[in-house]
Amino acid sequence: MVENDVRHLINRKLEHVEVTVFGDVSRKTYTMLEDVTLVHQAFPGISLEEVNTKAKFLGFDVNAPIMVTGMTGGTPELGKFNGTIASVVEELGLVMGVGSERIVIENPSSEESFRIVRRNAPTSPLVANVGMPQISRGYGLRELEKIVSVIEANALAVHLNVAQEVFQPEGETDYQEEVLGKLKDLSSQMGIPIILKETGCGLSMETVRKFSSYGFHNFDVSGQGGTSWIAVEKIRGERRGNWKSKSASLFSSWGIPTAASVIETKWADPASFVVGSGGVRNGLDIAKAIALGADIGGFALPVLEASLEGRDAVKQFLSEVEFQVKVAMLMSGSRDVSSLKKAPIVILGSLKDWMESRGITFSTYDKVRKGGY
Amino acid sequence: MVENDVRHLINRKLEHVEVTVFGDVSRKTYTMLEDVTLVHQAFPGISLEEVNTKAKFLGFDVNAPIMVTGMTGGTPELGKFNGTIASVVEELGLVMGVGSERIVIENPSSEESFRIVRRNAPTSPLVANVGMPQISRGYGLRELEKIVSVIEANALAVHLNVAQEVFQPEGETDYQEEVLGKLKDLSSQMGIPIILKETGCGLSMETVRKFSSYGFHNFDVSGQGGTSWIAVEKIRGERRGNWKSKSASLFSSWGIPTAASVIETKWADPASFVVGSGGVRNGLDIAKAIALGADIGGFALPVLEASLEGRDAVKQFLSEVEFQVKVAMLMSGSRDVSSLKKAPIVILGSLKDWMESRGITFSTYDKVRKGGY
Amino acid sequence: MVENDVRHLINRKLEHVEVTVFGDVSRKTYTMLEDVTLVHQAFPGISLEEVNTKAKFLGFDVNAPIMVTGMTGGTPELGKFNGTIASVVEELGLVMGVGSERIVIENPSSEESFRIVRRNAPTSPLVANVGMPQISRGYGLRELEKIVSVIEANALAVHLNVAQEVFQPEGETDYQEEVLGKLKDLSSQMGIPIILKETGCGLSMETVRKFSSYGFHNFDVSGQGGTSWIAVEKIRGERRGNWKSKSASLFSSWGIPTAASVIETKWADPASFVVGSGGVRNGLDIAKAIALGADIGGFALPVLEASLEGRDAVKQFLSEVEFQVKVAMLMSGSRDVSSLKKAPIVILGSLKDWMESRGITFSTYDKVRKGGY
Amino acid sequence: MVENDVRHLINRKLEHVEVTVFGDVSRKTYTMLEDVTLVHQAFPGISLEEVNTKAKFLGFDVNAPIMVTGMTGGTPELGKFNGTIASVVEELGLVMGVGSERIVIENPSSEESFRIVRRNAPTSPLVANVGMPQISRGYGLRELEKIVSVIEANALAVHLNVAQEVFQPEGETDYQEEVLGKLKDLSSQMGIPIILKETGCGLSMETVRKFSSYGFHNFDVSGQGGTSWIAVEKIRGERRGNWKSKSASLFSSWGIPTAASVIETKWADPASFVVGSGGVRNGLDIAKAIALGADIGGFALPVLEASLEGRDAVKQFLSEVEFQVKVAMLMSGSRDVSSLKKAPIVILGSLKDWMESRGITFSTYDKVRKGGY
Repeated sequence: MVENDVRHLINRKLEHVEVTVFGDVSRKTYTMLEDVTLVHQAFPGISLEEVNTKAKFLGFDVNAPIMVTGMTGGTPELGKFNGTIASVVEELGLVMGVGSERIVIENPSSEESFRIVRRNAPTSPLVANVGMPQISRGYGLRELEKIVSVIEANALAVHLNVAQEVFQPEGETDYQEEVLGKLKDLSSQMGIPIILKETGCGLSMETVRKFSSYGFHNFDVSGQGGTSWIAVEKIRGERRGNWKSKSASLFSSWGIPTAASVIETKWADPASFVVGSGGVRNGLDIAKAIALGADIGGFALPVLEASLEGRDAVKQFLSEVEFQVKVAMLMSGSRDVSSLKKAPIVILGSLKDWMESRGITFSTYDKVRKGGY
Repeated sequence: MVENDVRHLINRKLEHVEVTVFGDVSRKTYTMLEDVTLVHQAFPGISLEEVNTKAKFLGFDVNAPIMVTGMTGGTPELGKFNGTIASVVEELGLVMGVGSERIVIENPSSEESFRIVRRNAPTSPLVANVGMPQISRGYGLRELEKIVSVIEANALAVHLNVAQEVFQPEGETDYQEEVLGKLKDLSSQMGIPIILKETGCGLSMETVRKFSSYGFHNFDVSGQGGTSWIAVEKIRGERRGNWKSKSASLFSSWGIPTAASVIETKWADPASFVVGSGGVRNGLDIAKAIALGADIGGFALPVLEASLEGRDAVKQFLSEVEFQVKVAMLMSGSRDVSSLKKAPIVILGSLKDWMESRGITFSTYDKVRKGGY
Repeated sequence: MVENDVRHLINRKLEHVEVTVFGDVSRKTYTMLEDVTLVHQAFPGISLEEVNTKAKFLGFDVNAPIMVTGMTGGTPELGKFNGTIASVVEELGLVMGVGSERIVIENPSSEESFRIVRRNAPTSPLVANVGMPQISRGYGLRELEKIVSVIEANALAVHLNVAQEVFQPEGETDYQEEVLGKLKDLSSQMGIPIILKETGCGLSMETVRKFSSYGFHNFDVSGQGGTSWIAVEKIRGERRGNWKSKSASLFSSWGIPTAASVIETKWADPASFVVGSGGVRNGLDIAKAIALGADIGGFALPVLEASLEGRDAVKQFLSEVEFQVKVAMLMSGSRDVSSLKKAPIVILGSLKDWMESRGITFSTYDKVRKGGY
Repeated sequence: MVENDVRHLINRKLEHVEVTVFGDVSRKTYTMLEDVTLVHQAFPGISLEEVNTKAKFLGFDVNAPIMVTGMTGGTPELGKFNGTIASVVEELGLVMGVGSERIVIENPSSEESFRIVRRNAPTSPLVANVGMPQISRGYGLRELEKIVSVIEANALAVHLNVAQEVFQPEGETDYQEEVLGKLKDLSSQMGIPIILKETGCGLSMETVRKFSSYGFHNFDVSGQGGTSWIAVEKIRGERRGNWKSKSASLFSSWGIPTAASVIETKWADPASFVVGSGGVRNGLDIAKAIALGADIGGFALPVLEASLEGRDAVKQFLSEVEFQVKVAMLMSGSRDVSSLKKAPIVILGSLKDWMESRGITFSTYDKVRKGGY
């Protein structure tokens, strides 16, 4: 890749952070977690101290079902944020992912901005990150091993971002089915789990079934309701006079709301491991996502925002989220995360209608989410 | 308890009244009584004079199904409000409860603020009040008998307030199941009925089933939609810089709306005695709560507010509520409270969806509320 | 009745008109006709000229299914409005009712304000009007024959207004069942049809079943959504410092919305004759009411308002309504009123939920409204 | 036709364009396409380049399922817009219809404003246009052949506009059933397909069944949600003091929303060819209409508006729409238009209730729209 391209990639990453944090790119739509109520239990049968938030992340023990999902890396500035977040994740015993590492392959000097994550979080489960289009376009074992090794990752997230790419002038929309076989082979050779991950538009039951048929069973739904990458591209497009930006605006509410996507994913592959993310902003959202069928909840933007204020802000934010998860567990009568998955819930409004349109009855799904499939 | 702790408890009580009456602690959410319609009967078959509002409260006769639920007591000022309310309750033949009497045990000089209630309401059914955490933490027969005797109570309400305690710096969230057995034993020894009572978040069918299995069958649902104690704690927390106050804000709409809670309670224990409270503000709310399955309706805040204006205001308010109950009974064609329980109702909107999510069909519930279980 | 009482009655009538026209007494709620859609038929198979709006009103032929329902009379001023309206009703071939004629019995000098109606509408079907409480309190054949003869009425409406009376200081809420037997006897003796008529709160299926069991089968639903007589009494009460006015405000949205009331009435007595009124304001509302099961649509307030501007305004208003009925018939593919009763309709929103709560399925009701019972 | 009448017709056409573009005639209501969600497929299995938008229009190949529906023509000015649009339609390989050609019969000098369309679009499928009332009132083979030959049309649209005519002072509302037989005969003689087309109020299942029974199977639904011709007539009426304009206002939300109309049409005649139009404004609307059962999407107003700005604006607008269709196809996992017809969809809100009222279950309709009838 010529120098110009690398500079371009770096600038794009910086602009993504800037637009995400300061631009108006929060969804007009919503996560449909608003349509979910955890039923209050006035007599939980336990005290707050007895609530056990410990969870499993792909076999690793974590103190709470909270994941900082991948968002950044690539330049010294962005590396600093990564480092700050990593040290808090280590202290609190959570999980962390990094932003797309394509830049590591294309510009070795960017490595440090990722390496700092493992250095500051020596024992935490960490998740490397690469885009599906890069694998379509030629990344092989060498590149993926490089990407994984930079953070000594415990898992590799392969992100799908067709909705973002399609509105980029430089967009790559290669999603031919062959790449799934190739990825499966690479995954066997690398020996670490692969997480298939959307980037704000959610996974559908059809997509999950296709992935399952190739032997993939770990998913990060990243549903609609959080950062709209389409809106990010719209703002970038307007700055450059890209004619696609008007269309990007039209599609800014495209996607599957997070709550619906968790349900579709679990419905399609009941034994799968699911990260509930996309517009998740606090511990109550996380608890709802888990009660709906996720194994862990994830977010990136609120942590990135806190990291601009420094380590204390990140620690305070994540501690509050952990407290909120614990409170939601206590008041829904859930002694541990596995009880939370079975906690009584109420589903109203559009999410109820969504399920009906998709042929998912509440009573059948209630068994699925509780593990009775 | 050292003097400092007592002063602390007294100040907390005063602050609770102040924040409740003057702070913005009414729910952003609603009681779902808004989703209930009593069907108008153009030809009631009776005149207003013939409508009989007499009701039973745990075996005692009352002139109308109206209860002033427990809210205050503990200091001379708060005792004055208690006394004013009690004398009107006696005059009108209603039911009254007092606020938490923990302070009676910890500070004997506070007794007078409760004793005045029985003095001013010598023949009314009165309900003593203690928190479940106090029983968890050691209250025995001696303490409960003291609490009951101070107002020569006809029943003892044991309140559950996990949602409030969890956000207090000093919060006690002990809700281990053992306490239910202990409370059952104490109740047999005392020989007066126990009412299990929420404090603004409502009782669920799971919670009611647990209580029933221990032999408790009297409930005060105190559902979501009225005073949010979580919001009260949020305001108190902000004043003190308590880091939990941000989380308290997140949970301020947590809970089971009053109408849903009445239905869940009756569904779980069809033969139970149910006080419909939580955001109840007038006689139409009370009539709806009874038609949904409650035996009596209750409220505290509007009476407390009237008591700040004096005895006349309390009497006028409660007389209007009684008139409103009577009008709602007349126009729904209900000759007496037992007819009101069978009056035709319509359930629309979110309450309809809530029931569906909880597996409660309207037609089956219609039989349950009418006593046909 | 002493002179003072008569003056009182006259003043009340004048104040009713004044408050109704100038006060804010339109419902906060709605008629639920908003939830009804007549399905457009792009190819009606007829021309506008061929649409036949002729209808039957209790055996009488009328040019369109439009009734000016009873609202006023009693003083020379109010008689003038009655006369204006009557002459237009005669010209257009519609139906007209008058306001309560109790004043005719109590003050013979008020007769002229009613007699003018028959004088100006010599061939139109006219409906006399008396309150059910008057019959409870003693009116017999003599009084009813007087009331009927004053306008040589073709039918007698007996109005039910418990919701209004209950908030009047002078209110009469006698609705004991005996009066129905008495009324049935009187009706046999008089030999003209009786219409049982609500006054803004609608008829329920339970009420209609009771009436049917006594042999009454003509109904004017007068549902919720139009003039709220409760709100009228609230304003009158505030002027007089009546303590009931606060409660009147609470009940101002009490009642059965017009669309729901038409359905309940037809459901309870499929062969009955039904006037669809209450918040009906134009010809589209009338067409919807008929498609829902009514035989004719009725309104009072918009005609009264037009009459303040004079005869031309009344004629223009009623001609437009007739045109609107005709347009709605054409575009729903209804050649005549009997086709309109079978025209395809769509029911959305709260009315759909209302029917569900009342155990009325759309498909079964669809047969009932089409006459297939 | 006398000269005055022709001038009148010309002026009416000019005023229609003026009011449509500058007046407030967009619907208060909506298309119900808002209630439809195409389910996002994160891994489409194809790239954007592989998406094939080619479609069939009555046997003709087009590059994308986009039709500029008929709106204008008749004067030199309006002919200029027609010419501009036609040349872009030719370049992009789309379909185009023209406005009502009645004026061609009545004023031969208007021909040129239509002829320019075929001249500028020599190879595109073009659709001639005549009103059903003209055929009722006497147009025979000679007139229709003239209308078709002026643009060497590939199909003839016969438009139904009873809702517009009924509010015109000069309105013609002849829709007697005989005309359908006559039209069928004419169509056999002419040998080109007939499209029956609404003009903003939508086709119902009853209407479509009637047409099918006469052997017509090509429909342009033109549902409610776009330009309200009733609102156009209301504005024209007010300018002229036409008393019908108040009634026009009342009916301005009359009609079948576009999404509901596509479903009703396909439900009534599953093998029919359907143009989804009415409030369609972009490529996402078109993709939804096709997923609901249409074969092609159509619009007129946004193209007319662009044509006021010139050829570049028209080309840019239509290119963007084509891109949007392609993006919606990619992200719903639809390789071609026939896959798009089977793409997973979610139906929420009023459209769901509409279907229920009309006896159409989602699961049965899902088979119909996918061709499994």
